[in-house]
Amino acid sequence: MSHSNSPTAKSLGEHRIINIIQSRLSQMPLMPIPFGDDVSAVNLSENHVAVLKTDMLVGKTDVPTEMSLFQAARKAVVMNVSDFASKGVQPAAALIALGLPTSFAQKDIEEIGDGLNAGAQEYGAYIIGGDTGETSDLIVSVSLFGTTQKRTLMLRSGARVGDILAVTGVFGKSSAGLRLLLDKTCSIDASSRKTLLESVLMPRARLKEGLALSDSGQVSASIDSSDGLTWSLHELGRLSKVGFTLDVVPFGNEVKQFAEQNGLDASELALYGGEEYELVLTVKPGGWDSAVAAVESVGGQLLPIGRAIKERKILLTVDGDIRPVEARGWEHFKSHV
Amino acid sequence: MSHSNSPTAKSLGEHRIINIIQSRLSQMPLMPIPFGDDVSAVNLSENHVAVLKTDMLVGKTDVPTEMSLFQAARKAVVMNVSDFASKGVQPAAALIALGLPTSFAQKDIEEIGDGLNAGAQEYGAYIIGGDTGETSDLIVSVSLFGTTQKRTLMLRSGARVGDILAVTGVFGKSSAGLRLLLDKTCSIDASSRKTLLESVLMPRARLKEGLALSDSGQVSASIDSSDGLTWSLHELGRLSKVGFTLDVVPFGNEVKQFAEQNGLDASELALYGGEEYELVLTVKPGGWDSAVAAVESVGGQLLPIGRAIKERKILLTVDGDIRPVEARGWEHFKSHV
Repeated sequence: MSHSNSPTAKSLGEHRIINIIQSRLSQMPLMPIPFGDDVSAVNLSENHVAVLKTDMLVGKTDVPTEMSLFQAARKAVVMNVSDFASKGVQPAAALIALGLPTSFAQKDIEEIGDGLNAGAQEYGAYIIGGDTGETSDLIVSVSLFGTTQKRTLMLRSGARVGDILAVTGVFGKSSAGLRLLLDKTCSIDASSRKTLLESVLMPRARLKEGLALSDSGQVSASIDSSDGLTWSLHELGRLSKVGFTLDVVPFGNEVKQFAEQNGLDASELALYGGEEYELVLTVKPGGWDSAVAAVESVGGQLLPIGRAIKERKILLTVDGDIRPVEARGWEHFKSHV
Repeated sequence: MSHSNSPTAKSLGEHRIINIIQSRLSQMPLMPIPFGDDVSAVNLSENHVAVLKTDMLVGKTDVPTEMSLFQAARKAVVMNVSDFASKGVQPAAALIALGLPTSFAQKDIEEIGDGLNAGAQEYGAYIIGGDTGETSDLIVSVSLFGTTQKRTLMLRSGARVGDILAVTGVFGKSSAGLRLLLDKTCSIDASSRKTLLESVLMPRARLKEGLALSDSGQVSASIDSSDGLTWSLHELGRLSKVGFTLDVVPFGNEVKQFAEQNGLDASELALYGGEEYELVLTVKPGGWDSAVAAVESVGGQLLPIGRAIKERKILLTVDGDIRPVEARGWEHFKSHV
């Protein structure tokens, strides 16, 4: 399968691979959501769409040793729900393609079944079918389905200059948690450790926040942050044809504490982490109060972190200094912790 | 992951693994199609359903060495289309979860993209999204989506005693073709060789036949035959609570010739092959002529091979003798050619 004068999957990276595949595909006429957004969709009627998403968890790259099979299977569902959350769509049903090494025990398989069910039930969805086959790695490929009114979809492409940039929570917990798991020399107190590990092992999708934001009608663009905050900002900017200025890097207290105790930069952890499931979105300037009220009514929070600007860059204001934020993020095939 | 007193995936086999996973799942209320049919579905309205299917192709178990990446990717789509065909549902869109070894070249990835597109376009569907990740084996997990009227679905469970058992074509070509690929001592003339290999490398789904049969309204039950003819008969019987008597084993001329030249039994090749994509179905006794006319109007054929009977067995009549047909078929984890 190797061709001496052709780049490999490893050198191409996930984003180029997706572009190559897309370039070979015939495009469906009247696609309600273009390629490159968090989910795909098919028109059901003039106003309704079916929303579809598939995202695959691979044991060797996506599952730290400390993660149980229950947690891995649950996470495979949750990472798909997060994409639905970012568009404001309630998931109804999921199908699972499950690749198992032959050595897996019945107990392992039961644990996977329980994790899949937990991930779906937490977000009001059901697993209605699937397939299984023999693989070298654990593979949990989840396909999620739901329906919604087309006008309520929060796409990546709608941000306008002047819109308020906001997030549904703080960043950096997953990257700090992953470092705790991988580097035994990292230290932190027990309570913070628990919080950081939980964000890796038991991630939560911001579904109720996404549904409330969609209902509010005040969101101009939205994306999930599974490839990291910076990557999400660059994608939101690229598809909306705007840039962003950040007044603050939103990291939590545990991340600040972890960074201080281990000689790391909390901003770096928050900007360039991956596997985070907060929503990153823009709100129309006149709609801020009602967007905040919508999110708070479901027990969530909305943190303003900047503005959409005309210049197509991500600019961070630190102590009065303005510096550009480089486009980096987690990328399969290329990234290694 | 191994537990000394728990059976492994290898000893459990695909069907038991699916049962174990299912037993851990909360069941969606009012499922329009129960677990265990060829596809899954979600109600869209009183009369309409969304139809969903996911089926995963794994390089090391599902792709013979002689199969190109174009052919493998195309087949991954076609095997999902075959399930839609068996229910009489037009597929609209597919999502792909693609697992690639890091060594794959750009040219390989292009070939996969072309194969996916070819498989979808042959059957009037579009690929609208997906995901990719780094895996040890090639993984092509396809999720197919379409919509239909609930009353036109041809389920596995509707066969009644006295219904005519029929197939859309002859069997055994794939198992003969696979033997040709795996055992270099097998011989056959060039033209038959081409036909047999084509059924392995470029399988066709009986979509137009399935749609025409559904439109005819004469089919009481239907299943695809990707796990082999015998397995399909046992499943159709189990879910319809009937048995079948077979007057004939439907194998083609090339299969007869291949069996004779290589000391094999053509009936065995036809009954116990896998990876075949004919439809196996039952027709209401008064509806035979109109079912045949429907299939012939789209260029297909409908071959009667027996009847549904009360006794819950599969019985084969050979030269006046009646013998039971054992329930065997291709099964991932357990079967090895």
